[in-house]
Amino acid sequence: MLRPLRNRVIVERNENEESTKSGIIITDSSKERPSQGKIIAVGPGRLRESGELQPMSVEVGEEVYFSKYAGEEVEYEGNKYLILDDDDILAVIE
Amino acid sequence: MLRPLRNRVIVERNENEESTKSGIIITDSSKERPSQGKIIAVGPGRLRESGELQPMSVEVGEEVYFSKYAGEEVEYEGNKYLILDDDDILAVIE
Amino acid sequence: MLRPLRNRVIVERNENEESTKSGIIITDSSKERPSQGKIIAVGPGRLRESGELQPMSVEVGEEVYFSKYAGEEVEYEGNKYLILDDDDILAVIE
Amino acid sequence: MLRPLRNRVIVERNENEESTKSGIIITDSSKERPSQGKIIAVGPGRLRESGELQPMSVEVGEEVYFSKYAGEEVEYEGNKYLILDDDDILAVIE
Amino acid sequence: MLRPLRNRVIVERNENEESTKSGIIITDSSKERPSQGKIIAVGPGRLRESGELQPMSVEVGEEVYFSKYAGEEVEYEGNKYLILDDDDILAVIE
Amino acid sequence: MLRPLRNRVIVERNENEESTKSGIIITDSSKERPSQGKIIAVGPGRLRESGELQPMSVEVGEEVYFSKYAGEEVEYEGNKYLILDDDDILAVIE
Amino acid sequence: MLRPLRNRVIVERNENEESTKSGIIITDSSKERPSQGKIIAVGPGRLRESGELQPMSVEVGEEVYFSKYAGEEVEYEGNKYLILDDDDILAVIE
Repeated sequence: MLRPLRNRVIVERNENEESTKSGIIITDSSKERPSQGKIIAVGPGRLRESGELQPMSVEVGEEVYFSKYAGEEVEYEGNKYLILDDDDILAVIE
Repeated sequence: MLRPLRNRVIVERNENEESTKSGIIITDSSKERPSQGKIIAVGPGRLRESGELQPMSVEVGEEVYFSKYAGEEVEYEGNKYLILDDDDILAVIE
Repeated sequence: MLRPLRNRVIVERNENEESTKSGIIITDSSKERPSQGKIIAVGPGRLRESGELQPMSVEVGEEVYFSKYAGEEVEYEGNKYLILDDDDILAVIE
Repeated sequence: MLRPLRNRVIVERNENEESTKSGIIITDSSKERPSQGKIIAVGPGRLRESGELQPMSVEVGEEVYFSKYAGEEVEYEGNKYLILDDDDILAVIE
Repeated sequence: MLRPLRNRVIVERNENEESTKSGIIITDSSKERPSQGKIIAVGPGRLRESGELQPMSVEVGEEVYFSKYAGEEVEYEGNKYLILDDDDILAVIE
Repeated sequence: MLRPLRNRVIVERNENEESTKSGIIITDSSKERPSQGKIIAVGPGRLRESGELQPMSVEVGEEVYFSKYAGEEVEYEGNKYLILDDDDILAVIE
Repeated sequence: MLRPLRNRVIVERNENEESTKSGIIITDSSKERPSQGKIIAVGPGRLRESGELQPMSVEVGEEVYFSKYAGEEVEYEGNKYLILDDDDILAVIE
């Protein structure tokens, strides 16, 4: 299992973004568009200078938009995952 | 529904900015001009280092000006939306 | 009416800066010179990390100098206005 | 009258810096040298995050050195003035 | 023995990343992929402005992903090690 | 007399750095080397956000090393002086 | 004697890094590798905004790794020394 550190999250990118359950259509002009994917794991949050934890803004299982070029990709047990900062997550698709 | 995170907002850009109800005229020289649109959804606000929420400066339904190249565009249920930072919103048109 | 947000102000640029009531002469070499205009509307001010408002340093009606390339221009009800940050205003002409 | 804002000052640049009362000689190699001038007006100071005013480090009437390319030049009532940040003032000539 | 300072860690890079015990497959396209390795030593943590220590987010012996181009490589007693910042460590592989 | 402001100091650069009383030899390869000189005047120090003064780390009369390209040079009463930031002073030669 | 200021240290670089007592082998590919040397003198530490001293992380006599291109080199009493920031020191070799 991958355990993200501090304010990082693990996301499984939504490959066939053409048409998805929540009606998102990604046309070719969408190259610059934010990407979409599912939250697989969430870090504990960033430690503030005060020593308290800054809570995370997303939860495991949520479908989210994130900045197109954000994060670093790893391959783990045959699957590709993105390791992102919480700040790179733009919105939750409900 | 799209739920923006932290201090982000969802805006529906005002496509035919030529002449709008509030008398805004966008000429071709306006390419650099700020864009205009309507607030569709507003995030909870940014968490300060103190842990308190920094209130947002706009509300759902307001018509606003925002910096021309700000934000990231998504297409959701057939409509185009912009995901912007609260700081990119310049003024409210009342 | 345009309502500027946070620490922004709306300024009506002084087009014929050649000779104005307060004796300001802008020669061609003044291309790099700060611009001059009148404050039309003033935002509430920036929220500090403490949550208090940072008061603005200008008032509606004041004639001011501001950095030449600062701000973003909009056209509203047939008039051109600049949306500036409070910090871009250099001095008040009294 | 020009009233500088926040931590800004108005300076009248010392044009004939060749030889001045305080014995400053500016040779051609001095193009990169700091400029010299007289303080005409002083702003109230910068507001700290705490809301208190940060006092200014110069006073009206003082002769000062300031960084060569700092500030913005205006022409007011036929005279040229520089609007500088307090931090750009390097030293007072006593 | 190498003792990392402040918020630094010593990592032994996992050379044959082709197939490892935790099933990570690094294909050639993985040149940009984060690297993987084992934590050999952990610094005491960064001192906050308050003077308190900011705890580290990893422990000796953990297998981790870290940003591809992060850190500086040293050779010590015939082995190569990387000296990284705690922030460059993305996730722990459990 | 030159009175430096805030955390600035006035230094008289040591021109003939070939051989000086404290045995410093500056060879041609030393073009990038830090410069050496004597502290002539010391500012009051920088005001912290708390309003307290940050004490200076050098005193008048001390021989010091400073970063090669730091500061701004002035000519005052026929002598050349450097106006430096306290932070540009690297070490005191005792 | 050289007295480093604030959070600076004086290091004597380890010239013949080929083989040293602690078994460090620096091959030609090590051009980018961190450098190694001995701590000769340690500054008092950086003053925090609170006015307290931030303690240093190294002591005189310790053998250390430091970032390859960090610091400024001086020649003093016939010997070459590096003046580095405490932050540039990566690890202590024990």
